[in-house]
Amino acid sequence: MTQILVLHGPNLNLLGSREPEIYGTATLSDVEHGLVQLAGELGVDLDGVQSNHEGELIDRIHESQHVDAFLVNPGGLGHSSYALRDALLAVGRPFVEVHCSNVHAREPFRATSVLADVAVGVVSGFGADSYLLGLRGLVSWLRQS
Amino acid sequence: MTQILVLHGPNLNLLGSREPEIYGTATLSDVEHGLVQLAGELGVDLDGVQSNHEGELIDRIHESQHVDAFLVNPGGLGHSSYALRDALLAVGRPFVEVHCSNVHAREPFRATSVLADVAVGVVSGFGADSYLLGLRGLVSWLRQS
Amino acid sequence: MTQILVLHGPNLNLLGSREPEIYGTATLSDVEHGLVQLAGELGVDLDGVQSNHEGELIDRIHESQHVDAFLVNPGGLGHSSYALRDALLAVGRPFVEVHCSNVHAREPFRATSVLADVAVGVVSGFGADSYLLGLRGLVSWLRQS
Amino acid sequence: MTQILVLHGPNLNLLGSREPEIYGTATLSDVEHGLVQLAGELGVDLDGVQSNHEGELIDRIHESQHVDAFLVNPGGLGHSSYALRDALLAVGRPFVEVHCSNVHAREPFRATSVLADVAVGVVSGFGADSYLLGLRGLVSWLRQS
Amino acid sequence: MTQILVLHGPNLNLLGSREPEIYGTATLSDVEHGLVQLAGELGVDLDGVQSNHEGELIDRIHESQHVDAFLVNPGGLGHSSYALRDALLAVGRPFVEVHCSNVHAREPFRATSVLADVAVGVVSGFGADSYLLGLRGLVSWLRQS
Amino acid sequence: MTQILVLHGPNLNLLGSREPEIYGTATLSDVEHGLVQLAGELGVDLDGVQSNHEGELIDRIHESQHVDAFLVNPGGLGHSSYALRDALLAVGRPFVEVHCSNVHAREPFRATSVLADVAVGVVSGFGADSYLLGLRGLVSWLRQS
Amino acid sequence: MTQILVLHGPNLNLLGSREPEIYGTATLSDVEHGLVQLAGELGVDLDGVQSNHEGELIDRIHESQHVDAFLVNPGGLGHSSYALRDALLAVGRPFVEVHCSNVHAREPFRATSVLADVAVGVVSGFGADSYLLGLRGLVSWLRQS
Amino acid sequence: MTQILVLHGPNLNLLGSREPEIYGTATLSDVEHGLVQLAGELGVDLDGVQSNHEGELIDRIHESQHVDAFLVNPGGLGHSSYALRDALLAVGRPFVEVHCSNVHAREPFRATSVLADVAVGVVSGFGADSYLLGLRGLVSWLRQS
Amino acid sequence: MTQILVLHGPNLNLLGSREPEIYGTATLSDVEHGLVQLAGELGVDLDGVQSNHEGELIDRIHESQHVDAFLVNPGGLGHSSYALRDALLAVGRPFVEVHCSNVHAREPFRATSVLADVAVGVVSGFGADSYLLGLRGLVSWLRQS
Amino acid sequence: MTQILVLHGPNLNLLGSREPEIYGTATLSDVEHGLVQLAGELGVDLDGVQSNHEGELIDRIHESQHVDAFLVNPGGLGHSSYALRDALLAVGRPFVEVHCSNVHAREPFRATSVLADVAVGVVSGFGADSYLLGLRGLVSWLRQS
Amino acid sequence: MTQILVLHGPNLNLLGSREPEIYGTATLSDVEHGLVQLAGELGVDLDGVQSNHEGELIDRIHESQHVDAFLVNPGGLGHSSYALRDALLAVGRPFVEVHCSNVHAREPFRATSVLADVAVGVVSGFGADSYLLGLRGLVSWLRQS
Amino acid sequence: MTQILVLHGPNLNLLGSREPEIYGTATLSDVEHGLVQLAGELGVDLDGVQSNHEGELIDRIHESQHVDAFLVNPGGLGHSSYALRDALLAVGRPFVEVHCSNVHAREPFRATSVLADVAVGVVSGFGADSYLLGLRGLVSWLRQS
Repeated sequence: MTQILVLHGPNLNLLGSREPEIYGTATLSDVEHGLVQLAGELGVDLDGVQSNHEGELIDRIHESQHVDAFLVNPGGLGHSSYALRDALLAVGRPFVEVHCSNVHAREPFRATSVLADVAVGVVSGFGADSYLLGLRGLVSWLRQS
Repeated sequence: MTQILVLHGPNLNLLGSREPEIYGTATLSDVEHGLVQLAGELGVDLDGVQSNHEGELIDRIHESQHVDAFLVNPGGLGHSSYALRDALLAVGRPFVEVHCSNVHAREPFRATSVLADVAVGVVSGFGADSYLLGLRGLVSWLRQS
Repeated sequence: MTQILVLHGPNLNLLGSREPEIYGTATLSDVEHGLVQLAGELGVDLDGVQSNHEGELIDRIHESQHVDAFLVNPGGLGHSSYALRDALLAVGRPFVEVHCSNVHAREPFRATSVLADVAVGVVSGFGADSYLLGLRGLVSWLRQS
Repeated sequence: MTQILVLHGPNLNLLGSREPEIYGTATLSDVEHGLVQLAGELGVDLDGVQSNHEGELIDRIHESQHVDAFLVNPGGLGHSSYALRDALLAVGRPFVEVHCSNVHAREPFRATSVLADVAVGVVSGFGADSYLLGLRGLVSWLRQS
Repeated sequence: MTQILVLHGPNLNLLGSREPEIYGTATLSDVEHGLVQLAGELGVDLDGVQSNHEGELIDRIHESQHVDAFLVNPGGLGHSSYALRDALLAVGRPFVEVHCSNVHAREPFRATSVLADVAVGVVSGFGADSYLLGLRGLVSWLRQS
Repeated sequence: MTQILVLHGPNLNLLGSREPEIYGTATLSDVEHGLVQLAGELGVDLDGVQSNHEGELIDRIHESQHVDAFLVNPGGLGHSSYALRDALLAVGRPFVEVHCSNVHAREPFRATSVLADVAVGVVSGFGADSYLLGLRGLVSWLRQS
Repeated sequence: MTQILVLHGPNLNLLGSREPEIYGTATLSDVEHGLVQLAGELGVDLDGVQSNHEGELIDRIHESQHVDAFLVNPGGLGHSSYALRDALLAVGRPFVEVHCSNVHAREPFRATSVLADVAVGVVSGFGADSYLLGLRGLVSWLRQS
Repeated sequence: MTQILVLHGPNLNLLGSREPEIYGTATLSDVEHGLVQLAGELGVDLDGVQSNHEGELIDRIHESQHVDAFLVNPGGLGHSSYALRDALLAVGRPFVEVHCSNVHAREPFRATSVLADVAVGVVSGFGADSYLLGLRGLVSWLRQS
Repeated sequence: MTQILVLHGPNLNLLGSREPEIYGTATLSDVEHGLVQLAGELGVDLDGVQSNHEGELIDRIHESQHVDAFLVNPGGLGHSSYALRDALLAVGRPFVEVHCSNVHAREPFRATSVLADVAVGVVSGFGADSYLLGLRGLVSWLRQS
Repeated sequence: MTQILVLHGPNLNLLGSREPEIYGTATLSDVEHGLVQLAGELGVDLDGVQSNHEGELIDRIHESQHVDAFLVNPGGLGHSSYALRDALLAVGRPFVEVHCSNVHAREPFRATSVLADVAVGVVSGFGADSYLLGLRGLVSWLRQS
Repeated sequence: MTQILVLHGPNLNLLGSREPEIYGTATLSDVEHGLVQLAGELGVDLDGVQSNHEGELIDRIHESQHVDAFLVNPGGLGHSSYALRDALLAVGRPFVEVHCSNVHAREPFRATSVLADVAVGVVSGFGADSYLLGLRGLVSWLRQS
Repeated sequence: MTQILVLHGPNLNLLGSREPEIYGTATLSDVEHGLVQLAGELGVDLDGVQSNHEGELIDRIHESQHVDAFLVNPGGLGHSSYALRDALLAVGRPFVEVHCSNVHAREPFRATSVLADVAVGVVSGFGADSYLLGLRGLVSWLRQS
């Protein structure tokens, strides 16, 4: 069965309490419940990991030989972490990038992602729904490839 | 019942035959069927219009007093049409921007949208599925607002 | 008698209802009434045309052999339409550029006009009065040339 | 009665003799006569001050507790004087920026104003008439606020 | 027989009267006569269309299933119309870009073309002859491919 | 009692031995003694943490529910760590940014901080005294808010 | 005894009334009282001068042979006055730059100082306290040099 | 009889063997034969020189008092040789710039020419035909001047 | 007899004591003596004025109806004073710009002059000799014009 | 005996399997064997550490009092980690930067290193041999210093 | 036997006497001796050429049909000579770029090479050893290809 | 006796006939006569060389062991020839850069010199007099060093 690993970058453990007018009120736990439920509907296995440590996220990507694809909310690392980009390229598995907020409607640096050009696609601006839409898009993409 | 108008910008009438390795093989008619079906599932009314004329798209936006929100694939106009941006701002209704291709993985000008910062959110890279994901995201956003 | 053609670009048909905190509450019809009245006071003939189509505006400029000068509110086209610029250069008649909002106090792209360097002058920020001031300036300029 | 103070920046004392093909042949005295006459018609009080000293202009702005609004032709200071900008912000009164020449049709630095984004509006290119148009616009704006 | 469609963008209907010191005195009709005559000599069929409407040009490109190649003078659209670029890419036929004036010797924006990197080649600066040279180059290219 | 957490970023454990001509000869221990003593004088509680790990600093910020404000010397992370910025925004507590060296007098990249625009204020250039000045400023700010 | 001269640039005479939500409610007189009192505690002599005239500030710097160091709030001159920079370099005495507002949290031009790279250090964002912190930092620096 | 000098810059002696997928398979000798033949048809005299030495090309331009115009393929010198530009300006004779490859479709530096703004026109992208088209354009231009 | 006015901008009163390793040890008085002596040799009248006030320098330029040309060392104003540039343009007399230091060998801002493009010529880097060379060049230029 | 510490940044643990067409097929273990063998030949002691954690690498640099020099392949951290740069500066030991791939032949961000200007030298593009060349260069440099 | 040609660009004939604190004290003759000796050890034939003439270097590249690869120290030409780049591309043989100094630690223009992206690899900063390391890397690369 | 070598770059052999409205009507021979005469007055020996070949100029610089200083008019090479810069640095002798035209009043590329920051000084804009002024400045500088 297709295996998806969801990577939540720095500060996403605070989803729900963190600037809720920007990121919404759903907690990371709410997000994960929603993802697992949708994964069941879509017939895929899904696991998640959150870390505030770039190195930890890279280690997890390296250890994921059984994973078919990643769903990645890189948080602030998405704007500067070439090491994260290289980790995703190194394991050669497809991934979708998601953002809860609309990155184009905030500080200019948020509109630049060092991951997006090597992703399958990007979803931005729908709060916790960005994860669900990203998962749907990723699974559909995997089935067509 | 919630009314959604899908706006397809220039060249999207050629979906399916136009550079299929980039945009996929689904035709505009396929996309519209999929959207109408999903709209039915989601309990919203959906109509669509395609035009290669910026002015025509703006006229249609102005005439859409009954529309609650727009799903917009601006095609090449998304990179330069401040008039289209102003039309969407002028009617004051929310919209979601979608792109079939991953705009970050192509020519640099495609990564710049003059609409995105005033959109609810953006979906890019999933072929015809970008429309479906965008519709889901838009409807969900409307229900939470 | 001196003939003035007023060109209203995209979205100006919505003046009055469109983001009134930015553009004011006067409608296009109000603006035109004011302009015709002032034209009478100043002893010039004045006609107006609004279109959301760049091509339509260019066609009208080309057809205006009897026109002595233009008063132009280019709307969003002012930031990118080299074709509109070329049309005004091609017929070789003077024009004044007007904006209801203060273009310097909004998004950065609004401060750039591709018409302004070939205009007689520019008036920006006075709401519907920008048109009236522009007309006064244009007529005065014509009388001194 | 509404009090307007006209501020003429550096080199405007030479109006009429200074590069008349650019700035026109009206002298500063002509301009002031025209402004006083129009002020009378519009029912406002108007006074003017010219200085080649940035500090002098700032001092005058600070001393103008009785002034309701400013009409400012900053001359060369408009492109670089953040202190002048701060003075106008500090007293919190509205102002209109005017230029005799069309700043967009000359050296690139002239198209940049450090005042314009905090002004009510800007008038540029009509020679001495720029002052008269600016005064009309300012008075009309004051009456609508 | 090889079919060539010549696309004339905005303002080219005014060729001959429009800034003749820049664009030359040959009218569009003169240009078309010259092209048809040369096409005959070269053994190809040639038709032409001029429009001031971006959308009209795109529509015509889409309708040109029988056309083997395009000769394009995009006028002002060449500097900003990503939609026109996409139309030419969408139908997948080769094209040559021509300009009557030398775009490198005028305003900086004219040196940038959003079409040129996907064209076969570019000819600029020879007045009406640019069309004839472009046609020769295009036909020769087609015979070698 | 008001609680202040001092965050020392990467390489600040080497204060005193690290390029002393730039950073001074006071060790981190000296700095902390000075801060605790001043905190006592000012009537606030103060604790400190140093880490070379971005993730560790973010974790500590998240765990600091009892902290009223932060004093942050981000070290090299201040120029690039959007994740650190987001952590400080996420917990919504005020902070002051301090640098021992004058960041404006060194390599250009040091003059850019991704934290400074969301800080209360910034102190730079006073060696170990930057911390003390920053603490004074922060405590005074807290008392006025 | 160590002599400090405080230089207050343009518009700082309006401290307290000038945009108090940005600059605070302390007047220049309040600031000077606070500085004199702190100078006494620190055992230094302190005098102050405010001027809206760049030239006046430069003259005062030149006349300050007895001054050991400067505390400078350059106001708007800090972003553009190379002459002020040169004056401080010319007399070869150390200085500290202070700003009441956080210059990084406002218009982009405020983040650029033409003085900062030749200052001892910079304090920004603490309202009237910025002066006091700057004085402490300057005196401490003088004692260590 | 009109005299044309063809200048071939560095590496053009390798035409035909040099990256033939970019520059085509015609050798420099083929090109020169074609040019001489066309020159005969057009009734002009034509000579050619190739050099890998910038100074040699400049010397030859200086020695060409009898030459009426130049046809220039500057090779890599076209992107950086201000000395070559100055040589062509110094002798005051018209020239056409040609490139075998489409310079807009390759590395970004190739799209910049330091000669093009002082040329009559530019032809790019037609392989060896670029020379022939350039010659036709140049001769036609000379006859109209 | 030809009248030359030498304008010394801010901080040049400190020549000789001001950073002598950059500006040399000659005082302003030495410079003026040298200039008067050379003026005598060259048969022209020469007067000088130094001011730290931009406005003072502009006033003096305006009052100089009897002056045939200016020799200008603008000091720090040369990098930013558009008002000084406008004053020199307004009186329409030629001027030469001089700098004691080599402006290209110092901070980047020093290489930019807002006066140089409207000067006759520029001399930079020869210490006090820059003035003498500039005077020679100016007088020679006047005699050839 | 001279001690060298080799630092391998993020993702270098995957050498050999990671995009082998770019990085080559030698594993990190192969690289380390080769380095140890060459170190023996050169008469130096060599140890290595790989980590995906920026903080871990910085900690190791700090703990390396016995190390005479570093050989650093920073991986993706080389483009953005000012903290890593500061760590190397803080311990004041020389280092050589190596890259397996040719960083100039890939994405533009790879050509920028925040370490290179404070390194002894840089070797890029030779696959696993880059390490060996870097070690040779470093040892030779140490012997000459 | 593998043939290597070493190309030394402008000013490298002065190695040893030229700014020895930057380029080292080894003369070009020393470098060539070292290279020939190493070539012998590595089992390849090596010849060298130095020229201050760009055209001479290009001619030599063209004449090198028997050469298998180049070792290139382009000197100052490396920052601007597109003609040299084209020569190396034209003959289609691999090359390694070497610099004695660390180009990243000097003037900004030195960090830009117009050759590096088409080289096998780059070695910079090791003085005369850069040549030896480059030769080792080139020979090893040739054996693996 | 002090030896000066004057270096005239490309196209300066055409002085007098080359765009005389820009460069003046004095020929290179006139310039050299003037220089030799002034050298005699100043008590120095002077020789000159002109070449259109960068390499020739570099060779001559290298061969000039007996030369104390250079007077350099680099022509078009001054904007791009890092090799010429390196040659002047390599021999370590002072030089003055001169230009006949005012480089600030022409195309933007002319305002950039890659030599100026390592020159003693620069003279620009005085026609043939620029050489004479440069020689005076250079000789005076040599006597003071």
